[in-house]
Amino acid sequence: MSGSNAVGVDLGGTKMLAGVVDDYCKVLYRRTEPSSGQTENALLDLAVEVISDALARHPEAGGVGLGIPCTIDRRRGVAIAAVNLPIVDVPIVEVLSERLRVPIWIDNDANTAALAEHRFGAAKGTENAVMVTVGTGIGGGLIINGEVYRGTIGAGAELGHVVIDVDGPPCQGNCPGRGCAESLASGTALGREGLEAARREPDSVLGRALAEGQPIDGAAVTDAAHAGDEVAREVVALIGRRLGAALTSYANIFEPDVIVVGGGVSSAGDFLLEPARAVVRERALVPMRDTPIRLAEMGPDAGMIGAAIMAREELERS
Amino acid sequence: MSGSNAVGVDLGGTKMLAGVVDDYCKVLYRRTEPSSGQTENALLDLAVEVISDALARHPEAGGVGLGIPCTIDRRRGVAIAAVNLPIVDVPIVEVLSERLRVPIWIDNDANTAALAEHRFGAAKGTENAVMVTVGTGIGGGLIINGEVYRGTIGAGAELGHVVIDVDGPPCQGNCPGRGCAESLASGTALGREGLEAARREPDSVLGRALAEGQPIDGAAVTDAAHAGDEVAREVVALIGRRLGAALTSYANIFEPDVIVVGGGVSSAGDFLLEPARAVVRERALVPMRDTPIRLAEMGPDAGMIGAAIMAREELERS
Repeated sequence: MSGSNAVGVDLGGTKMLAGVVDDYCKVLYRRTEPSSGQTENALLDLAVEVISDALARHPEAGGVGLGIPCTIDRRRGVAIAAVNLPIVDVPIVEVLSERLRVPIWIDNDANTAALAEHRFGAAKGTENAVMVTVGTGIGGGLIINGEVYRGTIGAGAELGHVVIDVDGPPCQGNCPGRGCAESLASGTALGREGLEAARREPDSVLGRALAEGQPIDGAAVTDAAHAGDEVAREVVALIGRRLGAALTSYANIFEPDVIVVGGGVSSAGDFLLEPARAVVRERALVPMRDTPIRLAEMGPDAGMIGAAIMAREELERS
Repeated sequence: MSGSNAVGVDLGGTKMLAGVVDDYCKVLYRRTEPSSGQTENALLDLAVEVISDALARHPEAGGVGLGIPCTIDRRRGVAIAAVNLPIVDVPIVEVLSERLRVPIWIDNDANTAALAEHRFGAAKGTENAVMVTVGTGIGGGLIINGEVYRGTIGAGAELGHVVIDVDGPPCQGNCPGRGCAESLASGTALGREGLEAARREPDSVLGRALAEGQPIDGAAVTDAAHAGDEVAREVVALIGRRLGAALTSYANIFEPDVIVVGGGVSSAGDFLLEPARAVVRERALVPMRDTPIRLAEMGPDAGMIGAAIMAREELERS
């Protein structure tokens, strides 16, 4: 079965993770390189180098999948626009195929993570699944009838950009929206609300951390919640309830078998998910109020693994 | 081609519309009966009678489709719960099949309307389409890869119950949600906002109508808008902007080829749709901000025609 090994690359805003994955989801090889502060050309050179390296070690790998935190035109193989990477209208499939002489497919990194969760993780065995990746922003991936749904050209499944407050604040990054889930329930929002809480409650763990000059970001709030700080737990619960409003929308729209929550903020675990689940149970329609809401299982490799799975499945199709 | 004629029934809250439709979408026969104020048994008797009548006139019709404004468990053929009909957990496919001895399929009426728009109307020729039916409530229908997407058991596509205001007012009917699109952008909301505007602006067309004791509902506001009343037009525009927030969510989620807006409130035409389009153009992501937003084309028969199309297509599959 060595012919069904494939290379997966998760081209993130801070690091590039490349790996070779077999069809049992075993990672045979992995390599991480920093990606922040690079120019577009340097990023492409780096991608060529890590992929060449992986292919040299695993020449049996028949194809390459790339997950990119970017709006994708999958029909033309073009990365349209990314928030944290210097990528604008790059015909990335053409460019890399010419230099690497190997079949290449691209997708949004949240879609590849959803694919990995569906084939091997928290959504395994389901027909219809919704996945949200809650980090600095909120990414989304959709499984419909067992396959990734990407929209007509491949730019859809932007689940972080559902409106949960019609008169809400401007969204972040390249989104011109207002009151999107991403602006109110992401790690960025968690840090912002945490900072406000730290100022309001100087005697809390968060408040003392602020007084000591420590940065109050999403990770700091999550850590304080795990450490037992009630103020931090209430902030995480506020974000969880807002996330729950978005999950209520997904449940009512998709009536999925499961909603999977991943990304850095999901490390808050039930401090985040229980308030979110309570909102869905209370506010979604029957029978969607019973939609299971599960933590992602594939960990930080999900995007890379899913990219490799995508490549393998596309090879099998072609 | 007479063998591909089918019976469609739109079992609405105020009237039951039955028809026989051929595969060119021509309505060969139609009959309307009042349905409000009936018991569950009387409704089922009436359905049996109108379907028997249609089948007697068109014995070549091979199957029956029913569109019901109801949450549906399509796997079991059960109508779970409706707002405007006395239907709770009725195994409607089993009951009607036994009495009529003909193949029967059921679906939510907004799904059958979406199917009709996709096969013959404003979404014809598209791969992925979103349809919202804006009336007393807001119904939804989804076309994914050319087929109706209904969720895992068939209860999904409840597009009226996306949350557009996380701290908004309670929703209506059997929805336990808050700030749903249905509670803020439906015909009911249009009437409510119209009444407030009439009280605030006694010299407007709406205000004078109120003083004369006329009912201020959604239809009255739409009529006043068409008659040139600026106050009514501003109320319709407010509803249009809120609808636009929901359409922005659908556009970002589905990246569809088209969003179709139907239902009674859509008779306000561009007074409603232009403000909605402006919100999508301003707030949705690239390239989804360019999603075409079109008026439905199939008129008030859409639900009945789509139900017949569903039956014909299911017959062809089986």
